[in-house]
This record gives sequence, C-alpha cells and structure tokens, in this order.
Amino acid sequence: MRTIRWDDGAVVTIDQTQLPAKLVFLKLKTCSDVAKAIKSMRIRGAPLIGAAAALGLALTASQSKAKDRRELIIELRDSAILLKSTRPTAVNLAWAVDQVVRRVGETRGAIGDLKSVVLDEALEIAESDAQTNRRLGRAGAKLLEDGDTVLTHCNAGALATVEYGTALGVIRAAVEEGKKIKVIATETRPLLQGARLTAFELINEGIPVTLITDGMAAYVMKNRMVDKVIVGADRVLRSGHVYNKIGTLSLAVLAKAYSLPFYVAAPTSTIDLDSEPDDVVIEQRDPREILFIYGQRIAPDGVKVLNPAFDLTPPEYVTAIITEEGVFPPKAVRKALEHSE
Amino acid sequence: MRTIRWDDGAVVTIDQTQLPAKLVFLKLKTCSDVAKAIKSMRIRGAPLIGAAAALGLALTASQSKAKDRRELIIELRDSAILLKSTRPTAVNLAWAVDQVVRRVGETRGAIGDLKSVVLDEALEIAESDAQTNRRLGRAGAKLLEDGDTVLTHCNAGALATVEYGTALGVIRAAVEEGKKIKVIATETRPLLQGARLTAFELINEGIPVTLITDGMAAYVMKNRMVDKVIVGADRVLRSGHVYNKIGTLSLAVLAKAYSLPFYVAAPTSTIDLDSEPDDVVIEQRDPREILFIYGQRIAPDGVKVLNPAFDLTPPEYVTAIITEEGVFPPKAVRKALEHSE
Repeated sequence: MRTIRWDDGAVVTIDQTQLPAKLVFLKLKTCSDVAKAIKSMRIRGAPLIGAAAALGLALTASQSKAKDRRELIIELRDSAILLKSTRPTAVNLAWAVDQVVRRVGETRGAIGDLKSVVLDEALEIAESDAQTNRRLGRAGAKLLEDGDTVLTHCNAGALATVEYGTALGVIRAAVEEGKKIKVIATETRPLLQGARLTAFELINEGIPVTLITDGMAAYVMKNRMVDKVIVGADRVLRSGHVYNKIGTLSLAVLAKAYSLPFYVAAPTSTIDLDSEPDDVVIEQRDPREILFIYGQRIAPDGVKVLNPAFDLTPPEYVTAIITEEGVFPPKAVRKALEHSE
Repeated sequence: MRTIRWDDGAVVTIDQTQLPAKLVFLKLKTCSDVAKAIKSMRIRGAPLIGAAAALGLALTASQSKAKDRRELIIELRDSAILLKSTRPTAVNLAWAVDQVVRRVGETRGAIGDLKSVVLDEALEIAESDAQTNRRLGRAGAKLLEDGDTVLTHCNAGALATVEYGTALGVIRAAVEEGKKIKVIATETRPLLQGARLTAFELINEGIPVTLITDGMAAYVMKNRMVDKVIVGADRVLRSGHVYNKIGTLSLAVLAKAYSLPFYVAAPTSTIDLDSEPDDVVIEQRDPREILFIYGQRIAPDGVKVLNPAFDLTPPEYVTAIITEEGVFPPKAVRKALEHSE
C-alpha cells in the first residue's frame, strides 16, 4: 500500500497522528492543506514529506489561474517558500520542491503543458522514492544475518516514505530474502512514532516486534538482546554527520559503547553536500508535544521544556550509511551521489 | 512536608500516581493496603517504600489479636513476606522490614510492649530517613558549584523518601548554601516520575527545572547544557554496581562519553554487601504501563513489550556515590558502612 497518492486533483494520504487507533485518510485539496499537514506531522518522515511537498506544488499548479508562464512560476515559488517553512531540518523536502521548480524553469511551452510538467515531476518523485527504497533495502539486507535482532528508532518505514521504507525497508528486504529478523522498536517520545507506526507496520507484515521505552536501549544492548541498530535520517552531510529524530545520538553513543554496528538508511535525496554541521537549524517544536499526552498534562505549570525534533550524530558513531547506490562509510557518503549521477 | 506519617492507627501518604494533577492523601489501614500501594507504585522511591513497609508492620502489630509473643512474631513474619514480595529490586524495603522483625525478636516483654516496639522502630526508621537525607544532601552539595546545571532521572526527591530526598536532597542542600542550581529532569517513561514528581517538587521550591524526554539526554550533554548528573539508587552492591530506575545506565554511559561527572545519591540503607550482580532480580513490570498512557493505547495489538523497572550500572560509569557518611568512589562504597557503624 502506498502512503500517499494523487487522486483526481487531490492528495490522499494517511493521517499519521491517528494511527494505530484509527486509519484515517486525509484528502488534501490545496497546497496550504499539504503544508499544514506536514507542519502538524499528520504527514511525517523525510522522504514522505518530500513527495508530499512535490504533490503540494502540483495542487498549486492544477488550481492556478495564472495567465502566463511567469505568473505560474511566481505562484509555484510562493508555494515552495510556504512548504519549505514547515520543517527546516529534513533536506528531502527542500530537495523535492527545488526539483519541481527547477524542472518547470527548464521547460518552455503553453501554460497547460507547464502544469502537466509539475504533476509529472511530482508523481515521478513519488514513484522514484518507492523504487529507491527497494534498491536501498536490497543493498542494506546484505548487512543482516539470519536470526538478527535489529533495534530501530522512530519510524523509517513505509509510513515515512511513499512505500517500503528506509530502515524498515532494509528489514523487509532481509525478510523477503528468507532471513528471520526480529525488531526492537523504541517508542520514540514525544510523538511515539515507534510505538504507533513502526509497531503497526511490522505487525501488519508479520515481523516480530518488541516495544521498549527510549530509556531501555542501554538495557537491551548490555543484555545482548540486540545485534544491530538501523535508523533513518532527515539529513546527511558530506562529512557523514547525520540529523535524525531526537534520541538517535543517544542510541549511536550506546551502540559504540556496546560494540554494536550502527547503520543509517538514507536515500541519496537525504544527502546535503553543501552544509556544515553549524549551518543546519535543528527544529524546536511546540512544548505541548511533551507536556500533553492524549490531552492529559503530564507536568506542572511553571516547568520549562526543551523539544528539539532532531539531534546530530557525528560520523565516528556511524558504522555505515545505506543508500540505494550501496553501503558507504559515513565520511565517504558523497560517493553515493557520484554513483547516482 | 513529610511524604508519609503515622496517624492514629493508620498510615497516611500521598498517592503519587495522581500527581501533579491532584494531591490526594491515602489513609492505609492495614498492612495489605500498604503492600498494594507499594506494588501499584502509589508509594514509590526506595527509601520511602522502606519506611512505608516498616509502618505496614506497625499496622499488623497494632491490629494483632496475638495471644503471645510467638503468635505476634509469626504474624509479623507473614506481613514481612507479603511486603517483600511487592518489589524485589530495591533493598531498602527488605532492609527496613528485617530491621523491625529483628528488633522485635531481640525484645522480651508483654505483648503490648512488643507492639510498641514495632511502632517505635518503624517511626525511628522514618525519622532517621529524613535526617539521613539532610546529611547526605550536605555531603553531596560540596560537589556542586554555583551556576551548575544538574541532570537528574526519575524522582529521587522528597517524594521518594520520607523527606528532603537523595539526589534532589543534594540539589536542595546546594541551593540552601546559596548556590544557584538549575535542573534538567528526564520525564522517565513509562511512569513519568520526572515529569510528574521531580518537576512538581522543584517548582514548589522555586528551583528552575527544564523537562526533556528520555531520548534528549545525549542532545543536552553534547550541547554542554549539563554540568553534572545525579541520580538515586534502589540498590548499591559492594562492588559499586548500581541498580536504579530503567534509563539510568543509558545516562551513565552518555555522561562518560561526554566527560560529565555521574553521581549516585544513596543512603547507606541502600547498600547491599551480600549480593553479586547476577543474584539480583530485576523486576519486570506489567506491559500495560508502557502500552497505555492515561488509558489510551499507544501501540497496536500483537506487539510484545519489555518493561524492566531497573537497570544495572557498572562502577566504571559512576564517578562517586554520595551517602550520609560522605562521598565514596563506587568500589569503596562499603567504607560508608564502616563509618556508620
């Protein structure tokens, strides 16, 4: 099943905040609807928000009353700015939006043709993500042995992508090869994507999954209940630094302390060749995500809250980065892009 | 304010599962009530469950219809078994119960005198815990400097003890000496004692506190937002191994990776000279504590769950153990007992 699709002038996707209790489909009719769904994390996961943003531009194009090419491009650029403002850290979003805008900029033709180009490019980004993840999965599956237990964080699965997933794609591919793989999923506070989404996906596929709280990672590693760690990424720098869901750095440091391999599964669209660690803004989200769980306040008035959405894992904690172009040492991750060009 | 007191034939204490939303006092009328309150963690915190269990024996004694010394001692031993079965890992509970039973065993006299001895000994344990924590706080406060930010886990505060607290007692003592101390509290899933109890206590005292999720510890350490880590303990072995709330090991490993001091605040009643790490049972609690938050299920049917209440931190990750007898390297913690004898 695809997580997102274009349906006759609307974008249809799953409301991920309501899983696993309810499987609710959202029908997003405007680019602004898409931006709001990304901002509120009804749509989340770096590759998925890239595809969603591209489809958001397709909504702008399809509804545009622009009279000429220039007007359409101005409308698309405005939508691009809106979409990019929703979440600053993941690079796939900016990558996908820029890809669509560039493609239109390179195209000459009637307004109707340009609108088609936007939709075609957005659908191509979505289709390509699904294929990329399968290639990434096959590349990473070589790293897993029959009987392995893999610890993963947050959700880097089909729900974080158009289809198949990155970290969970590696696990799926290994299972498809006939290997028996078990998964330990960290619940991933504050928004519980591990408990809500990763457990949901794996149970649906019949892959055994055990849920732990984030604080139990050292316990399971020390007690040799884990063989390997695989996480996704929201941005990978040329230097091999990895931005991913808050809590990833903790797992990476622990994996090193317990001599466990720590893999990052990230398509090449996640690689940012231009930025240095100090350049990247780590999104700070609303304190209420921590202070309230299902509407119930967990801490007293007067408490301050930190809510960084991501952390930065230095390359010395990363065993390898798994891309659709193969597996690379973190400091050589740029080679994945050379392969893909 | 005391967390627990004897009130005319009943034990009165705060229902800690309802904080911070509601301050509800429980009036426990039988030893079985006390055991249930400990098991369900309405009463929690290693020193507090020690005092509560001793007072539970006082309830048994005061309600006893025993006709002679032997019958009373049998009733007390049955109550002791019940109390010790509630939570196997914390050593203060067994220590307090054994202390009361031994004291009665050493006493000769009329049945009424023996009943008084039980109550006196239980009250002495409670009173002594309050004084011990103040001494422990003063000993530990020397390790804190004006301006320090201290990260703590779970709740090792007044609510975990009869009064004042252990880890939070150290912070209180430093503040009483005029030092400006800030605290970062990990929320401590599954039962959120950091968010619910530590934040509540510190805000009531005007000590600035910032709440983070458990997965953010590496982020705040790496970004130099923390100077020192102080946690409590449920059991400290002769070897310096520390049993404490699940998630402690993770913090200890991270503190070492980021070269931060990691202190354990534990009264000498927490020290177990007899056990080796392999002897100690780590309590595995009900999976529903993780699967449900305020009645809302967070993960799908079919997911397995691990719920160890504690983890074991080896001495190489512990900078020092703070006791009421002074500050000791973990491997020399037995010297605290020599001092107290």
